[in-house]
Amino acid sequence: MHPMPDPATHTVLPPGSTIGILGAGQLGKMLALAAARLSLKCHIYCDAHGPAMDVAAAHTIAPYSDLSALAAFAAGINAATYEFENVPLDCARHLAGLAPLRPGARALEVAQDRLTEKTFISDLGIPVAPFERVDDAASLAGLIGDVAAMTKRESTWLKPSILKSRRLGYDGKGQVSLAPGADADAAFAAIGGGPAVLEQRIGFAREVSVLLARGADGAVGAYDPPVNMHKDGILDRSVVPSGLAPAAQAAAVGIARKIAEALDYVGLLTVELFDLGDGASIGERFIVNEIAPRVHNSGHWTLEACVISQFENHMRAVAGWPLGSCERHADAKMRNLIGADALAWQALATEPDTALHLYGKGEARPGRKMGHATRILPLTK
Amino acid sequence: MHPMPDPATHTVLPPGSTIGILGAGQLGKMLALAAARLSLKCHIYCDAHGPAMDVAAAHTIAPYSDLSALAAFAAGINAATYEFENVPLDCARHLAGLAPLRPGARALEVAQDRLTEKTFISDLGIPVAPFERVDDAASLAGLIGDVAAMTKRESTWLKPSILKSRRLGYDGKGQVSLAPGADADAAFAAIGGGPAVLEQRIGFAREVSVLLARGADGAVGAYDPPVNMHKDGILDRSVVPSGLAPAAQAAAVGIARKIAEALDYVGLLTVELFDLGDGASIGERFIVNEIAPRVHNSGHWTLEACVISQFENHMRAVAGWPLGSCERHADAKMRNLIGADALAWQALATEPDTALHLYGKGEARPGRKMGHATRILPLTK
Repeated sequence: MHPMPDPATHTVLPPGSTIGILGAGQLGKMLALAAARLSLKCHIYCDAHGPAMDVAAAHTIAPYSDLSALAAFAAGINAATYEFENVPLDCARHLAGLAPLRPGARALEVAQDRLTEKTFISDLGIPVAPFERVDDAASLAGLIGDVAAMTKRESTWLKPSILKSRRLGYDGKGQVSLAPGADADAAFAAIGGGPAVLEQRIGFAREVSVLLARGADGAVGAYDPPVNMHKDGILDRSVVPSGLAPAAQAAAVGIARKIAEALDYVGLLTVELFDLGDGASIGERFIVNEIAPRVHNSGHWTLEACVISQFENHMRAVAGWPLGSCERHADAKMRNLIGADALAWQALATEPDTALHLYGKGEARPGRKMGHATRILPLTK
Repeated sequence: MHPMPDPATHTVLPPGSTIGILGAGQLGKMLALAAARLSLKCHIYCDAHGPAMDVAAAHTIAPYSDLSALAAFAAGINAATYEFENVPLDCARHLAGLAPLRPGARALEVAQDRLTEKTFISDLGIPVAPFERVDDAASLAGLIGDVAAMTKRESTWLKPSILKSRRLGYDGKGQVSLAPGADADAAFAAIGGGPAVLEQRIGFAREVSVLLARGADGAVGAYDPPVNMHKDGILDRSVVPSGLAPAAQAAAVGIARKIAEALDYVGLLTVELFDLGDGASIGERFIVNEIAPRVHNSGHWTLEACVISQFENHMRAVAGWPLGSCERHADAKMRNLIGADALAWQALATEPDTALHLYGKGEARPGRKMGHATRILPLTK
């Protein structure tokens, strides 16, 4: 008789341990499915019912501000993580005092506020798009009414620009494009008010993302960066290989690694990069758009094209396990099923070489991510 | 706003439908994980807690004979299936009256009794090992004491032979090897008594298995048959490709298809075949050892080497969906982790190109299937 090891006495959480996940969406669901392969159990905590709860050993529905619910949650788990970057900071900090939280609250703090994020990355010597803090319509009016003011920070500062709310933006929400002379009050109304950053619109060739895993021991691994195509501000397709030459790929991964190390990050970190193309020098080729302290839509193809997916490597890191290889054994084209796209599930289910993923959200609302489909192709490297 | 279709009015069960699974072991767990990808929910019914319950939306722990628990279970599901072949027939028949049961009770009836199984297959004109019904020690003594009697049925009837209990045998349990003159009482005691079959031990080259999916519409697909190696009566490894030439593979798949059609089978059917090798004529090359009316350990490699696994194709069939392709995009070597093998999980987690699966059973008892590891290799066809 060989009992499996006891989670309480192991820093590497043994099979049978329970990982708490804040958030119950499709990312939490796919994290829970990956954990299940390793017989790590999941306890989902969310303020509403979500798809992840259908595949987890336990779940709690309570506000993120409910300290007693969080305490009860923490008492039943061996480590915690989160599947979305808008977990209230107070919640994350409180939880981190009760159970190991990976990644930590600092990664959330940086990712939740575009000003903090851009400042943090810029301070690491990593290029970001030129930006200005704008707290209200008056200061915005000062900037957009005055082309001279827009060029004062950087000689490359160009119009048009984008006003982005500092907090709670995703999938193109909380953003509006501006041209000099635009109406400042209307622009602030369009992003829902609140503090914002004015960001130069960069003329980039395309977007790529780095999906980098960092273990509790500091080991890192990175998947081949996909190239990402958007539609209406929402990710539409991610494709590997991206065509990046090895040196360019190494530079992109190097940026993500620098950020992960500066955050002492544990888990899967996503860094979205604007790729200025082969014409740019290697040190200036990539501009960080934003980071996500979590698994990412642009990495869903790792489920089929890699032996160890982004989801499993995240859960391995959270559990203190050795990371698995990020190597890819196939080419892949992932496309999102947005809103009514998912109603074609019967036809999608018969597409050749295609893995269909449906998230289990009730209503196929316009703009809602309902699933994705990944087509696998022979490896071309 | 696009509501997803209503399960109650669709014969093809839409995403969000609930499939009931009888049994809560690792096969049920992997079925539930595959269902989750399609946002089909699972309700696990078992007489004890098991790993599948940790990844299912609902579970019931009740005896298989509890008619009111079965009625409550049936009321909450849109279709039912099972993950082990020893579901009591009364339970299956009762449930089939309350919800669509796929595969049906007839497949269980055939697979549960070695005499029924061998007779059924033999009556289809498919070769099985020569066998005799033996109800008690006296009739066994008559057979094994008399070599002439052992040869009366078939001219190829050879010693030694194997006594197998008709019911509840798996992983080599309920079997004992015999030679002429062996003690009949001791042999019956060794298999736990009860009605049995005496079966000729076949001098086969190796064992292969066919994993065949059949949809509710009668469409069929088959995975490349793996070659299977056993240790101490338990499956140790399954490898694809098996090296079977196309004509031989077609013959093996043809046998499974004939059986599936005779049973009007819906779901994934496994047929274990003794392969007599290239020396045998194509019609006599394969001898059916046994069938399993379920997904099978020898098909676990389909999780990584195929876009649509045996588990997903089973759940597609149960839900009335179109089958997915059974095509393989990689070579694979699956090995089981039996008993204490699974204690090496930290080392196993770092093996290159290897997907580690741990089932989440508490104690690593000798002979207990605790997990498996599948190594993926480039496709050689």
